[in-house]
Amino acid sequence: MKHIKIFAPATVANVACGFDIFGFALNNPGDEILLRLKEKRGIVISKITGDKGMLPEEPEKNTAAVSVMALLDYIKSDKGFEIEIHKKMPLSSGLGSSAASAAGALFGANILLGKPLEVKELLPFAIESERVACGTGHADNVAPALLGGFVIIRSYNPLDIIKIPTLPELYCTVIHPSIEINTEYARSILKSEISLKDAVKQLGNVAGLVTGLFTGDYNLTGRSLEDVIIEPFRAKLIPGFYDVKKAALMSGALGCSISGSGPSIFALCSSGETAEKAGKAMKEVFNKIDIQSHVYISEINEEGPKIIES
Amino acid sequence: MKHIKIFAPATVANVACGFDIFGFALNNPGDEILLRLKEKRGIVISKITGDKGMLPEEPEKNTAAVSVMALLDYIKSDKGFEIEIHKKMPLSSGLGSSAASAAGALFGANILLGKPLEVKELLPFAIESERVACGTGHADNVAPALLGGFVIIRSYNPLDIIKIPTLPELYCTVIHPSIEINTEYARSILKSEISLKDAVKQLGNVAGLVTGLFTGDYNLTGRSLEDVIIEPFRAKLIPGFYDVKKAALMSGALGCSISGSGPSIFALCSSGETAEKAGKAMKEVFNKIDIQSHVYISEINEEGPKIIES
Repeated sequence: MKHIKIFAPATVANVACGFDIFGFALNNPGDEILLRLKEKRGIVISKITGDKGMLPEEPEKNTAAVSVMALLDYIKSDKGFEIEIHKKMPLSSGLGSSAASAAGALFGANILLGKPLEVKELLPFAIESERVACGTGHADNVAPALLGGFVIIRSYNPLDIIKIPTLPELYCTVIHPSIEINTEYARSILKSEISLKDAVKQLGNVAGLVTGLFTGDYNLTGRSLEDVIIEPFRAKLIPGFYDVKKAALMSGALGCSISGSGPSIFALCSSGETAEKAGKAMKEVFNKIDIQSHVYISEINEEGPKIIES
Repeated sequence: MKHIKIFAPATVANVACGFDIFGFALNNPGDEILLRLKEKRGIVISKITGDKGMLPEEPEKNTAAVSVMALLDYIKSDKGFEIEIHKKMPLSSGLGSSAASAAGALFGANILLGKPLEVKELLPFAIESERVACGTGHADNVAPALLGGFVIIRSYNPLDIIKIPTLPELYCTVIHPSIEINTEYARSILKSEISLKDAVKQLGNVAGLVTGLFTGDYNLTGRSLEDVIIEPFRAKLIPGFYDVKKAALMSGALGCSISGSGPSIFALCSSGETAEKAGKAMKEVFNKIDIQSHVYISEINEEGPKIIES
C-alpha cells in the first residue's frame, strides 16, 4: 500500500503587530502525519498519539480528515486514506496545532494522489478545516504551515496570500506554559472596535516589520514587533506575561509577543545563542510563579511540510 | 548677499491604506522657495506669489518661517533669512502645500548655513511647522517632501521614518478639483473608533503595498491600494469621487484614492501613457458635473527638494 510520512510545522500567527494577517512556520516543534492511500473512498483516522486522548478520531470532526476529504471531493477522486497523526506539539497552545495536522495531511495526500494541485492551491481546504477546529476560517496558521516562511494574508475575500523573505539569522524562541486558553474565548475577549489612534500605530508597525524583513534590518524588525491592539487583552490570560516578555528583551531578543491566541509566547532573536539565552530567562520567570513550561528553539521553517518517509 | 532657490515637491499623503503613515513626493507640482542669508537674526517673508493672497506673511504664522526659525534656534545661530515663496501648487488641496514650503525653506536654509544638520535631521522642525498650518504635527507630507521617495512613518513618538524603494515605471496622476476642504474639518469627520475587522483589512493592505513596492509587483501594489477606514468618510466631501475613481481604474490605473485630506485625488499608474489617459478620463467626470479641475502627471520624486539656482 502506498504511504508517506510528513513533517508538519508549528506556526506563530499574528507576530505582534499583524493580527490575522501575519504568520511564520517553525522547524521545531512539528507534527508527523502518516498517510496510506486506499482504493476505497473515505477517510479513517487509524491512530493518534501525543494528544492525551484529546483529538477526535471521527473524520467529520478531525481537521486532518476534514481537509483531505474536501480535497478528494474537489478533485472528484474515488480514493481514500488511512491517516495516523503523531502530535509532537501541545494542543491549544497557540502554535497552530490543528493547522499543522491539516497542512501535513493535505500535503501528503496531494503527493499520494499524484499532485493534482499545487501546494498553494491546497490552502482553501486547510482554511475550511480551521473552521471545524476553532469556529472561524483563519489562514494565519494554515498558510505558513503549508507554504513555509513568513506569510502575509493580504485579503481573505478574495484569498490573497503572499510569502515574503525572512532574515538569514532569525531564530525563534517559543515558550509554552502549561495553562489552557480556549481559542474562541481568546477571540471573544477582544473588542470589536478599536481606536483609530491605535490602528495607526499598528499600521506603522506592520509597514515597519515588512520593511525590516525585506531590507535585512534586524533593529527595525525588532522595534516593529509591537502590538497595541490585541496583546493588552490577551496578556491578561497569561500569568507573568509581561515579566516573561521583559526577560526575553533583556536577553537580547528583537521582540516578543503572544503566539496566536496564546498561551505560548514567542521571541524573535538574531542568533541561536540569543534565542537559547532568552528561552532560559523566560522559563525562569514561569518557574518562579510555579507554572511548568516547555521551550522550543527554532529557525524559521522556509519549506513548509516535508516528506520524512515514503 | 548669499542666496539659493529651491524646488520643493508636492506630496501625496495616506496613499489609500496608509492613513498617517505613508506619503510620497511628486516632481510636479512643486513650489519654488528663494532664501537670502542675512547677518541679522530674524525671518522676513519678503514676497509670496501664486497664493491669491491667502498665505500669512507674518513670520510666526507662516510655515516656512516657523520651521526655519526653529532650525536657527536649535543650532543657536544669530543669522537670519529673507524668504520668497512662489506657490506653484494649489493651497488646501491635499497635496501638502504647507509641507512643501516648509521643507523647501528648511532645505535651503540648511545649505546657506553651511549644512549644520543632515537633511533627515531637519524633519522635526518641519513637523513643528505643520502644527502651525493644520493644528496637528503630522509627518506624512513633510517627511516625503524633505526626503523624497516613498516614506513610512512607523512611529511618531519616538519619530521613526523609513524611506523605501518605489517602482521604476510608477507614475502618479493627480487631479485637483476646484472645491475647498478644510484639513481640520476633514479630520473631524473621521470616527475615533473603527471596527477591528476594518483594521485587519487595512493591515493586510499596508503589508501588501510595502511588499508590492519591494518586489516590483505592480499588480500587488495596485490591489493593495484600498482604504476601508478613511476614504468612505472623506469621499462624501468630494462630489463625483467614486465616478472619478472608476474612470481612473477603467483607464488602467493600478489604484486611486484621496490625496491627503483631499479634495485632490491621486491615481498610481504603471506608465506615463496610462497616467495621461487616466488624467483625461478623471477630468471628464468633473467636467460633466461642472467642477473645474487641474491635472498633474508626475513620476515619483526620489530626491526631495533640489537647488534650482544659487
